[in-house]
Amino acid sequence: MIKEILMNVRNNGPLVHNITNYVTVNDCANILLAVGGAPIMADDMAEVEEITSICGGLNINIGTLNQRTIKSMYLAGLKSNELGHPVLLDPVGAGASKLRTETAKGLIEEIDFTVIRGNISEIKTLAIGQGETRGVDASELDVVTDDNIDSAIAFAKEFSKKTGAIIAITGAIDIIAYEDEAYIIKNGSPKMSKVTGTGCMLSALTTAFVVANKEEKFKAVACATMMMGLAGELAFNKLKADEGNSTYRNYLIDAIEYMTIEQLENGAKYEIR
Amino acid sequence: MIKEILMNVRNNGPLVHNITNYVTVNDCANILLAVGGAPIMADDMAEVEEITSICGGLNINIGTLNQRTIKSMYLAGLKSNELGHPVLLDPVGAGASKLRTETAKGLIEEIDFTVIRGNISEIKTLAIGQGETRGVDASELDVVTDDNIDSAIAFAKEFSKKTGAIIAITGAIDIIAYEDEAYIIKNGSPKMSKVTGTGCMLSALTTAFVVANKEEKFKAVACATMMMGLAGELAFNKLKADEGNSTYRNYLIDAIEYMTIEQLENGAKYEIR
Amino acid sequence: MIKEILMNVRNNGPLVHNITNYVTVNDCANILLAVGGAPIMADDMAEVEEITSICGGLNINIGTLNQRTIKSMYLAGLKSNELGHPVLLDPVGAGASKLRTETAKGLIEEIDFTVIRGNISEIKTLAIGQGETRGVDASELDVVTDDNIDSAIAFAKEFSKKTGAIIAITGAIDIIAYEDEAYIIKNGSPKMSKVTGTGCMLSALTTAFVVANKEEKFKAVACATMMMGLAGELAFNKLKADEGNSTYRNYLIDAIEYMTIEQLENGAKYEIR
Repeated sequence: MIKEILMNVRNNGPLVHNITNYVTVNDCANILLAVGGAPIMADDMAEVEEITSICGGLNINIGTLNQRTIKSMYLAGLKSNELGHPVLLDPVGAGASKLRTETAKGLIEEIDFTVIRGNISEIKTLAIGQGETRGVDASELDVVTDDNIDSAIAFAKEFSKKTGAIIAITGAIDIIAYEDEAYIIKNGSPKMSKVTGTGCMLSALTTAFVVANKEEKFKAVACATMMMGLAGELAFNKLKADEGNSTYRNYLIDAIEYMTIEQLENGAKYEIR
Repeated sequence: MIKEILMNVRNNGPLVHNITNYVTVNDCANILLAVGGAPIMADDMAEVEEITSICGGLNINIGTLNQRTIKSMYLAGLKSNELGHPVLLDPVGAGASKLRTETAKGLIEEIDFTVIRGNISEIKTLAIGQGETRGVDASELDVVTDDNIDSAIAFAKEFSKKTGAIIAITGAIDIIAYEDEAYIIKNGSPKMSKVTGTGCMLSALTTAFVVANKEEKFKAVACATMMMGLAGELAFNKLKADEGNSTYRNYLIDAIEYMTIEQLENGAKYEIR
Repeated sequence: MIKEILMNVRNNGPLVHNITNYVTVNDCANILLAVGGAPIMADDMAEVEEITSICGGLNINIGTLNQRTIKSMYLAGLKSNELGHPVLLDPVGAGASKLRTETAKGLIEEIDFTVIRGNISEIKTLAIGQGETRGVDASELDVVTDDNIDSAIAFAKEFSKKTGAIIAITGAIDIIAYEDEAYIIKNGSPKMSKVTGTGCMLSALTTAFVVANKEEKFKAVACATMMMGLAGELAFNKLKADEGNSTYRNYLIDAIEYMTIEQLENGAKYEIR
């Protein structure tokens, strides 16, 4: 499956509309280009419906949200639903402030999301009203481990059924759940948490994968997650002793571009449960 | 001419006021520093006139425009005109939304631009009301090739006469037109379209060139375009098999800094028509 | 002292709330991660008090300020004072526009800052109403040299007494003053001024140092400044002939991550006066 899904992304050049934060926006644009897609960023109420209409899908990321851009998120999301475009929500920092929690919840109520992708604390906040978010990172109390994985999978499947969305909970172990199925993915490197925006980049990448694979959205989300994780591994293997997180970021985005289908097929570490 | 123009930029350290998008703004700042200039970014109505007054020129880029920043673009542009400062317009995504098309057209009506720089689809949208913009990229239908170059040159000259501005249409082949003359430039690398913001960076760079070469603005725009294209070639030549667009971006900006006058004189590929 | 201060930063993982400009925000986030801290960026009035409450400290940077974010700066700053959190002000471009000068002055009047960090022209503007700011850079007329260092130190101490803040004036020679004491630091590389945001990054880094060293804030500011300067030197030493400011930026942030305590202890060049 990996081969076809990745080839669809690289050959179709999915155009993704991003309403996203100003911290990691440049990396999101470059990772979309690296995978063969194309980015547009637009957040003004007067143009978001039109912009999203010419794109294949929409990536809503609530980091550095404000009153003005929240309105644009609703407008663009509803328009995308109307057009049948895939829409992804990245609830950055849900749990860290009422504004973020309520915005994410409100968006989920009004918009049908194809994918909701966040860390475990963010997703717990949205699903059960409690998550130990530490700023924009997951709390250690919430982290998914081999010991608590069964309950985490059950939780993700439950939230998928409730929202109708593919739920992607990412961290050291990734859980991609849709209704009664889940991919458990163990690619990645701890170094990824030393770079700002690896989550945001994965959300942009995932949107491109889903746009290019409308018949296989669940597999597409799983593949995007494996690819990002493997890119994190390839980048880590290149890193020398006198290189740090800034160089690592470049290696990570680079890897999305040069990674071959064979590398991804051989390197993907997942099971279905 | 190249020698004198580039030396003027490097020796005068032109200070450029940028009202630009939040996607590529950091790269625009760094490319201005790389060439020996200096950037200021400021977009609040309460300060843009004052900021533009202490600068040598103004770079208006409408990517991620909003109602608030549009007003600032008008204020800063009119103030720059009043002071006789060079002003450049980069109509990012004109044709992709009414807001962008109308903002670009409105700015051209009210402000005397020294340079209007965009891809062929954006410029067609502004000049003749139709262009096949694909998001923020030119459509394949519009692309300038050796076959349609004559009509593209005529079109650019026409639009220059109509607006009074130097028209820079950039892509695989660049056309820089002013009244009845045009530079045709064939520097660059296809890899440049794999990095977000190469157009935005060129606009910032071009503004610096014009500010530092007020007596030779037309040549200055051509030189900036050659330099950016050659930087794209030098960067491409350095790229290894396991490097991708993120590293390429660094190589590109780096090349603007270390490129010698001789390299640019020898590497520039242009004709005047 | 250096050892303990740096270990506190690396071990405590200080969480820093940043209200900062969109030009250099990504580098600020990555430098905080490089040193072992964590960033949150949030600038909407509806969430800044809550976000700052879950953080250890606040970094207010007025680059690309606007009417909306200025209100958030006040709210977050006052809340931080109420909670006893360290707060840093980076008055980017004070002197370049009335909006910036008055915002910086207004913030200093209303909020008790732990640290005020800027270039000599910005600090002169705030302290004595005159500074020869050139955009966001210090003017050559103001620059601190071995010849005028005594009066610059006296001036910094004076401003510290007036504001109650640690004053960090950074440039080729750095002066960190608190009441009647000052650190004079001579680390750094002229290359640092070729990269946008080295000042902003230092402000973010300094906030993390102060958060993690509440009992030794003055020394912490001095250490952060030495570390940034030494990172600039290490990065410069790695730079090859065909590398420029974009690669230099990566090397600089990298160095914050891999620098050892021994390197900083041996490389720090300072005296106390």
